[in-house]
Amino acid sequence: MSTFGSAFRVTTYGESHCKSVGCIIDGVPPGLALSEQDIQVQLTRRRPGQSKLTTPRNEQDSVAIQSGCEFGYTLGTPICLTVQNQDQRPHDYSETDFFPRPSHADWTYLQKYGVKASSGGGRSSARETIGRVAAGAVAEKYLAEVHGVEIVAFVSGVGPIEMAGDGAELHALLAEITRAEVDKTLVRCPDAAAGARMQDEIMACSQEKNSTGGTVTCVMRNVPAGLGEPCFDKLEAKLAHAMLSIPATKGFEIGSGFRGTQLRGSEHNDPFVADGRGGLRTTSNHSGGIQGGISNGETIYFRVAFKPPATISQDQQTATYAGEDGTLAARGRHDPCVVPRAVPIVEAMAALTVMDALLVQNGRAATRARLAPVPAELKGIKPV
Amino acid sequence: MSTFGSAFRVTTYGESHCKSVGCIIDGVPPGLALSEQDIQVQLTRRRPGQSKLTTPRNEQDSVAIQSGCEFGYTLGTPICLTVQNQDQRPHDYSETDFFPRPSHADWTYLQKYGVKASSGGGRSSARETIGRVAAGAVAEKYLAEVHGVEIVAFVSGVGPIEMAGDGAELHALLAEITRAEVDKTLVRCPDAAAGARMQDEIMACSQEKNSTGGTVTCVMRNVPAGLGEPCFDKLEAKLAHAMLSIPATKGFEIGSGFRGTQLRGSEHNDPFVADGRGGLRTTSNHSGGIQGGISNGETIYFRVAFKPPATISQDQQTATYAGEDGTLAARGRHDPCVVPRAVPIVEAMAALTVMDALLVQNGRAATRARLAPVPAELKGIKPV
Amino acid sequence: MSTFGSAFRVTTYGESHCKSVGCIIDGVPPGLALSEQDIQVQLTRRRPGQSKLTTPRNEQDSVAIQSGCEFGYTLGTPICLTVQNQDQRPHDYSETDFFPRPSHADWTYLQKYGVKASSGGGRSSARETIGRVAAGAVAEKYLAEVHGVEIVAFVSGVGPIEMAGDGAELHALLAEITRAEVDKTLVRCPDAAAGARMQDEIMACSQEKNSTGGTVTCVMRNVPAGLGEPCFDKLEAKLAHAMLSIPATKGFEIGSGFRGTQLRGSEHNDPFVADGRGGLRTTSNHSGGIQGGISNGETIYFRVAFKPPATISQDQQTATYAGEDGTLAARGRHDPCVVPRAVPIVEAMAALTVMDALLVQNGRAATRARLAPVPAELKGIKPV
Amino acid sequence: MSTFGSAFRVTTYGESHCKSVGCIIDGVPPGLALSEQDIQVQLTRRRPGQSKLTTPRNEQDSVAIQSGCEFGYTLGTPICLTVQNQDQRPHDYSETDFFPRPSHADWTYLQKYGVKASSGGGRSSARETIGRVAAGAVAEKYLAEVHGVEIVAFVSGVGPIEMAGDGAELHALLAEITRAEVDKTLVRCPDAAAGARMQDEIMACSQEKNSTGGTVTCVMRNVPAGLGEPCFDKLEAKLAHAMLSIPATKGFEIGSGFRGTQLRGSEHNDPFVADGRGGLRTTSNHSGGIQGGISNGETIYFRVAFKPPATISQDQQTATYAGEDGTLAARGRHDPCVVPRAVPIVEAMAALTVMDALLVQNGRAATRARLAPVPAELKGIKPV
Repeated sequence: MSTFGSAFRVTTYGESHCKSVGCIIDGVPPGLALSEQDIQVQLTRRRPGQSKLTTPRNEQDSVAIQSGCEFGYTLGTPICLTVQNQDQRPHDYSETDFFPRPSHADWTYLQKYGVKASSGGGRSSARETIGRVAAGAVAEKYLAEVHGVEIVAFVSGVGPIEMAGDGAELHALLAEITRAEVDKTLVRCPDAAAGARMQDEIMACSQEKNSTGGTVTCVMRNVPAGLGEPCFDKLEAKLAHAMLSIPATKGFEIGSGFRGTQLRGSEHNDPFVADGRGGLRTTSNHSGGIQGGISNGETIYFRVAFKPPATISQDQQTATYAGEDGTLAARGRHDPCVVPRAVPIVEAMAALTVMDALLVQNGRAATRARLAPVPAELKGIKPV
Repeated sequence: MSTFGSAFRVTTYGESHCKSVGCIIDGVPPGLALSEQDIQVQLTRRRPGQSKLTTPRNEQDSVAIQSGCEFGYTLGTPICLTVQNQDQRPHDYSETDFFPRPSHADWTYLQKYGVKASSGGGRSSARETIGRVAAGAVAEKYLAEVHGVEIVAFVSGVGPIEMAGDGAELHALLAEITRAEVDKTLVRCPDAAAGARMQDEIMACSQEKNSTGGTVTCVMRNVPAGLGEPCFDKLEAKLAHAMLSIPATKGFEIGSGFRGTQLRGSEHNDPFVADGRGGLRTTSNHSGGIQGGISNGETIYFRVAFKPPATISQDQQTATYAGEDGTLAARGRHDPCVVPRAVPIVEAMAALTVMDALLVQNGRAATRARLAPVPAELKGIKPV
Repeated sequence: MSTFGSAFRVTTYGESHCKSVGCIIDGVPPGLALSEQDIQVQLTRRRPGQSKLTTPRNEQDSVAIQSGCEFGYTLGTPICLTVQNQDQRPHDYSETDFFPRPSHADWTYLQKYGVKASSGGGRSSARETIGRVAAGAVAEKYLAEVHGVEIVAFVSGVGPIEMAGDGAELHALLAEITRAEVDKTLVRCPDAAAGARMQDEIMACSQEKNSTGGTVTCVMRNVPAGLGEPCFDKLEAKLAHAMLSIPATKGFEIGSGFRGTQLRGSEHNDPFVADGRGGLRTTSNHSGGIQGGISNGETIYFRVAFKPPATISQDQQTATYAGEDGTLAARGRHDPCVVPRAVPIVEAMAALTVMDALLVQNGRAATRARLAPVPAELKGIKPV
Repeated sequence: MSTFGSAFRVTTYGESHCKSVGCIIDGVPPGLALSEQDIQVQLTRRRPGQSKLTTPRNEQDSVAIQSGCEFGYTLGTPICLTVQNQDQRPHDYSETDFFPRPSHADWTYLQKYGVKASSGGGRSSARETIGRVAAGAVAEKYLAEVHGVEIVAFVSGVGPIEMAGDGAELHALLAEITRAEVDKTLVRCPDAAAGARMQDEIMACSQEKNSTGGTVTCVMRNVPAGLGEPCFDKLEAKLAHAMLSIPATKGFEIGSGFRGTQLRGSEHNDPFVADGRGGLRTTSNHSGGIQGGISNGETIYFRVAFKPPATISQDQQTATYAGEDGTLAARGRHDPCVVPRAVPIVEAMAALTVMDALLVQNGRAATRARLAPVPAELKGIKPV
């Protein structure tokens, strides 16, 4: 369905040519200072037409808060956020509408629903992610204000070009990187040299009337320990779910990820030391900030794979819905590579995942805190 | 929480030293022929002590159907499945119990719950997966019987050793591989040469008192088109969620995955042709059987990364819960590499994911089918 | 939270003075013909200012379909419905704003959220029900079109005045009553004599600057057998949940209800006879169309109690939020009795409940239908 | 489905003749002292064979904790509770098995599932409520220990005999009544005179080979203010859902209930006064402890209607599944009136409802408490 989260719950609506797109967010903590501008910032980072690297379509994507706020504060009631579509009419059918676009959602939607939306992708349109980004901004507002959580995503690969750096270099970057630094380049890669080559690659694709894939890496700092549910709703499982729900994604890895499978356990394990504040920290972070499905207070980081956009500006040999072979003519304007604009979407889904886990854990912790203390050894403390 | 799925819903229970482990499955279609033996087969593939590659602990893991069946048929009511634990008593606390094991769930569980289960991992124990495998076998029974769905997972990497083959070779394997072939080698790798080297690698780890990671690839054939929900519950998002909920997993990729990010759109797109049965098929399958979050009827395949087990048979420098540096002495018996035993767990989670999506889609399709037909162009058909 | 239903899922948003109120409906079957007018009809029956019996506030409550439809058909994607608020600004605080209104939600909302919305009731405003009525109209459209379901609610009591008729007389009415007949009187009671007295009673309340309660009876004809889930989600349990979620409700009874507790089992049981179409029907209907939590195909009927509105046009002795005794001055305009306007709300919640149960059951039935048949005796048929 | 609750989540399993019945409880706060005896007390109050008023079947219904506890404390992980069935075999089919019992669930289950369980009621058996009562005892343990919540249900009506007392008399009883007092009479009515007549009525039914209905009233004292969700999950809506999910229930009313519909608003409103502890209380309680769907800290009370049991010890004219008229012969042993044994079931469902609402609200309140304070007027305080 179109709902994400259990305690902080976002339901999006809207497709490419309807009146508006947006979402309802239920479960927002009451008493949070919130303005439309808090939300607009990320929508503006997501919108098309930002640079020569993205589609030339230009939509302002201005958000309106319909409900759930008064006098600049959230009421704890559902917040409906809407963004008007500029192109609000379903198109008349044209020849190309009878071709399901290869590797797009046209054919599978028809299999699922038995009904075909007009040209433009309908619900599979990237415009659906507007509701996600808007809701993510609200979650982030709370996380930043109360826990100092910092969520920063950046482009780590475009086509065959990958950002340099692994091990210590990567961890130094993860510890410091900010959105301001990420936004210094159009391609949103904090490694200037790699970024320049990525930009060239995207421009080359554009000239070839082709598209290319890429990867986005995301780091979350200051996420409290204890978030995530054992078993099915492990924090990394929810993050994977969140990321693979973004259009065009093909993979997810957390911490050491696929490369970590090649290490020995003695190398991969993250030893504990006292953190000087009465708790523990780890001296390395192959775990990526999550152990046994639960955040351990260390930096969370993960990487997401995006395929090359299915819509390309060249003709394609394929079949109509009716099974007749033919040529799908190129049309429309598209992003040759989605990763620069995917950055705020990844951040939004990460924020939504953490906020939901936080609310659930706060309920458990507050409920437990009212009980009498358990014997010392049940808390890992050697009884004297 | 401990529940997976919405329409086919599995709730697992149990930890390492309680009386029993198992699950309740709600939403099983009524009238399905089902015996304990149908379930036992996969539990036996999962159980420890199967070979020299796995932990020498030997538990029979015999399943009992507590409810939901009569005269060999399911009633449509909840099926409770239980497996007795052989070691049913929490241990007395010993010195090592006051060390959270590095990269295990001990410390994060204490952060989350404020209570520490006795030695053995508690709920993060691999014994929790028994309930999943049992439930998965029930889902598979239906999927195989009604749709001929075939789900086969196999080991595709152990430490640095990866199974050969990409492209055509891989697709030929995915089209044919069976569980019987997978089980021919202890390591469960269908590539005999690579499998032999993987086995050596695992034995080497074992002798080093160390552990290693690996990858499992899974293929699903004959999954009907139309499964998966747009937006947040895309089929690949649910698969990613399911796989990352398995202990020790670090990554997931579907279809072309991370490698696919390096292709051009024109290479990556899967063109359509008529399938000869009134529908369409694709001539390539970079999509991995899912487009726009919805199955397209092609073979679904994905790969899952498992980290090296955190429990190793050598001493480790780390800290106690109380923050005192010290040496955690090696103890217990463990798997030097989990991937051979992870194979049926991956299959189970895949089956649960597809079965849940099928029930949801069957509800929508049956409900839609009772409506009057829509105009031809809304079905992608050019009106005459 | 603000979501109702699992497969047909409605999320409402909005409070009294925000920009708009409305809902997102997820799970609408694709291919349903749907226009704004289909929805407006019930909103118009619900809106204030319809007659001298209701509040003189006059709002048009015009609905706009934001998404999920194209060319007059539903797409199967989320439908967002919005209604603009005419009074879109939170008020300045006045003296009376520091009194929680007795038996209203002001004080409990503050306990819950720690934040007080401005005057007007915020989320507890009756305007929240606009989203429900709009969504209910969509559910009804399907139910009527495909199953011929007829849902009719009417006023059966106002203050001490109850509609005459029980037993055979009631059942004759339930078999025939239509919305057109209900709407013949302002008070929406199909018993003309009782209705006239109810109207007098409401006018008397209005002149006394007071309010009164009442009851609404609802009948659903042609609901298919097999809907409702055993155990926790029995159809009557979901109906009770739905009805008690309407503001100002205090009770629910189905079929024979509280009076049925006084009968002997031999009187209360509904014997079966062949229905002439290969199934069974019952010769009486004390069950109210539901047995064991599952619809049996007979007429479903139930009754809902509404308390007198808490807002009255006379001064009340009470305390401020700060605990100071004082007089809450009368202000504003209100309905002296909510039941006439509650009629379409009861119908809407009934439609939402049945539609959700239908989608779930359709999924199960379609999934089961693909299995091989079970032995005759498992279907209640004596084997020969 | 068979799950109740969102944050404190109970899933029951089992039918009349399977191996065992029971439940999994997920979301139990960790660190709660819990023993099997804590649970057994209520199961023993529920079990058959307690007195001459109940069925002579005698089952011990001894509960075993399978998981989720160690050293006498809950771990926060799922608790599986099981009770062995003494009669573990489905019966051979006999003549009477081909008659769906009037007003029982036999026919509707067959409509729903297409499969008929063997004699005994299958999943609609009262044995399903064992899991509820066991889970309710766990919820109650927490509520009593931390908040001093007292939940006491009692029989307030049997057939035409209703307990005396309304208004002040009733409220005095609700303020004081204990389970010990309730259990002083076999019929569990705290009004000795009425109780004696109720007992005679039940014995008369038994001798007539007939059955009778009744009502159960339940009071909850010391429930914290702020529980329950606006809109769809109002606390009274969840209570109504919970109560109507108990087999044989036909009605629910909270606070003033159906009688309250006859009052004027000025009589029905509950004025506020300072409670002497910095908050407010109400001087009357027509609201039944809930306003706007949210608990206000006053005593919660409600009444539940139970129909006469469908199973009676006399022959009944009815039809077979195949539609042939015939006589269903009396058989088996049954309760002539369920209300005495329903008392702990009502208490259990009430406890589950409140515990779930508490966990959700604790999450919200703890999350809000970390934000900076809002301006005074947003908290209902006149700014100076």
